[in-house]
Amino acid sequence: MPPFEVPEGDPFGPHNLPYGVFSRPGAQERTVGVRLGDHVLDAGAAAQALGSPYASLLARPSLNPLLAAGRTAWSDVRRALTAWVTVPSHQETVAPFLHPLSSVTLHLPFEVADYVDFYASENHARNVGQIFRPDAEDSLTPNWKHLPIGYHGRAGTVVVSGTDVVRPSGQRKAPSDPAPVFGPSVRLDIEAEVGFVVGVPSARGTAVPLGDFREHVFGLCLLNDWSARDVQAWEYVPLGPFLGKSFATSVSAWITPLDALDDARVAPPARTHALLPYLDDAEEEPGGYDLRISVAINGRTVSEPPFDTMYWTAAQQLAHMTVNGASLRTGDLYGSGTVSGPGPGQRGSLLELTWNGREPLELPEGKRTFLEDGDTVTLSAWAPGPDGVRVGLGEVSGRIVPS
Amino acid sequence: MPPFEVPEGDPFGPHNLPYGVFSRPGAQERTVGVRLGDHVLDAGAAAQALGSPYASLLARPSLNPLLAAGRTAWSDVRRALTAWVTVPSHQETVAPFLHPLSSVTLHLPFEVADYVDFYASENHARNVGQIFRPDAEDSLTPNWKHLPIGYHGRAGTVVVSGTDVVRPSGQRKAPSDPAPVFGPSVRLDIEAEVGFVVGVPSARGTAVPLGDFREHVFGLCLLNDWSARDVQAWEYVPLGPFLGKSFATSVSAWITPLDALDDARVAPPARTHALLPYLDDAEEEPGGYDLRISVAINGRTVSEPPFDTMYWTAAQQLAHMTVNGASLRTGDLYGSGTVSGPGPGQRGSLLELTWNGREPLELPEGKRTFLEDGDTVTLSAWAPGPDGVRVGLGEVSGRIVPS
Repeated sequence: MPPFEVPEGDPFGPHNLPYGVFSRPGAQERTVGVRLGDHVLDAGAAAQALGSPYASLLARPSLNPLLAAGRTAWSDVRRALTAWVTVPSHQETVAPFLHPLSSVTLHLPFEVADYVDFYASENHARNVGQIFRPDAEDSLTPNWKHLPIGYHGRAGTVVVSGTDVVRPSGQRKAPSDPAPVFGPSVRLDIEAEVGFVVGVPSARGTAVPLGDFREHVFGLCLLNDWSARDVQAWEYVPLGPFLGKSFATSVSAWITPLDALDDARVAPPARTHALLPYLDDAEEEPGGYDLRISVAINGRTVSEPPFDTMYWTAAQQLAHMTVNGASLRTGDLYGSGTVSGPGPGQRGSLLELTWNGREPLELPEGKRTFLEDGDTVTLSAWAPGPDGVRVGLGEVSGRIVPS
Repeated sequence: MPPFEVPEGDPFGPHNLPYGVFSRPGAQERTVGVRLGDHVLDAGAAAQALGSPYASLLARPSLNPLLAAGRTAWSDVRRALTAWVTVPSHQETVAPFLHPLSSVTLHLPFEVADYVDFYASENHARNVGQIFRPDAEDSLTPNWKHLPIGYHGRAGTVVVSGTDVVRPSGQRKAPSDPAPVFGPSVRLDIEAEVGFVVGVPSARGTAVPLGDFREHVFGLCLLNDWSARDVQAWEYVPLGPFLGKSFATSVSAWITPLDALDDARVAPPARTHALLPYLDDAEEEPGGYDLRISVAINGRTVSEPPFDTMYWTAAQQLAHMTVNGASLRTGDLYGSGTVSGPGPGQRGSLLELTWNGREPLELPEGKRTFLEDGDTVTLSAWAPGPDGVRVGLGEVSGRIVPS
């Protein structure tokens, strides 16, 4: 099959066109690529061959210049790319710049500025509340329905899919221990999330209103917020997670532009509490996304978290994150928080899937409460696209190696 | 007085030589400068004029290349600079590159990678515990004496001294309020801290041992971690501070190299709890620094926090921050946490100085519980230097402007 013809229904057809950064064997040079089926188009080289003005955004070693260019440029570039891979006269010109995915190396596609992680799934928050505070009157903290709870994570340890994750060491202390002990985490977990990538900056001292979400956010990816639950439990009061999270956060090699996900937009769940005006999305366009996520351990699906169940939307998270005047930078990344649906087979962490280790998963390779060395975790997802075709998200995969 | 002759005892004499980044009037170009008295030496231009190999580190718009160059280069460059400003033959060559401080604009001196804030003063932590948890058995949380508690902050809103701070807006909810309200913070506070600047990166998956602190950390500065206490109180359970801090963090325009502070090194307070080996500094070189900080509001000193009272040292913080394998990047910044001494006039926040607003400060311009619009807060500090001369730290100053 000629490279431009992807199989019918391929989730990475010309309706998708996610962006990444790749290099070819033996070459140091990185450049922006666009995925088409199981090929990657060297978008910068194609733009140069066609004399396109977008070469200055695409013949670059990271997505940051494109991210910074803003919504009009994002639409224009996407329209151009669509033509290049679908119009025969263009196809002929760009064909030499189409490489099999299997022949290239994929890199972290953008320079991460600040990384923020939210906690926006009500099912997840209630599961965690029931596990850790079984006697509490309400499994949610009092602020949960009033604001999207978030915190800053470590931008410097965001890694691309395929990067091994070294099991972190740290302090842990069971309530029965007289003093903390040190060693490799024995409760290493995943968090299945969606990451949003900021393109257009905002000025310090100004807030980004709900309706401006698509002016600032370029696209999304899958994100695995690896978590050492034992380290986290001992350290997190009163200032939140730190070393329990900061050793690694994995993201997809492919950033799906929001423009590819218009058919996946859905209304978020009904709000049970009145929202302050800056978060009130009743009159806004639908802020949710219908993304069907799968979590696999060593190739076997263990959960299917539905993203459309998230209580807080990415637009609300952006409005909240900036309402105090905090500025945005190109490359800011924020995670949705663990995605968990209402069903037991829809939970986005092993903490919940095994109910804090009490109900192990039965895998062919043995029981799992938390991750063992050698385990590979892969998140994948798709969204409804035009004419019933799926839009595939780039998978995010990582293997645990011993410390 | 010729520019190279600073007054005797000047805390910015040739024994100090902190680094910054400046531009001259009308010029867009930024370059590395070294402070000498009330002048700044254009270090890059001086290096070029002298044919120095260090021009490649100094004729740059940020300190990052110098930071990345490592300890041997740091010492060599400092030795060279000392010669340029003290040896007459060199002085003659570099004199044209010495500009009055009053004639230049100072900029953020390095590109901040990740920003982490700690909580390392026992006096501060006990004050906060007594204010917010008066009925608790112990004013410290159980983990406090076992690890230096820290969390990630927002790197993108680290600003240089002199930058105005817009009063942040946000949600707050008093226990008596039926629902949160939104508006400008009414409990805007400071945190007087010392910031440490990482130069040499470390690899993901490896830990930086205590003894390697000076191989990685280039220098320090003053840091004001502005805090909206009302926003923070409502948001921070369970994932820590977020919008209550993320609107601005101010740092000095001058980074003092650790090499200028050898005479200020002191042992930290006696440890009351056994430490895990990776934090045990009993056999290490003294990890504390004797820095005498002053906090002034509108020019009037309101507190003098002594840095030598900090329970956790910067070396311990670095060891802890990386013990899970989190990597370091050039430009990582970490704050010590609010510096508070044992005395009431030694507290590093208004929260403590006014005991949560119950004991207002009496200033000539009126009573203060928290900051009012128009207030300017200035942190300054000095350390013991060679032969009894003081080593001055660059001040950090910021004025509150209305939202």
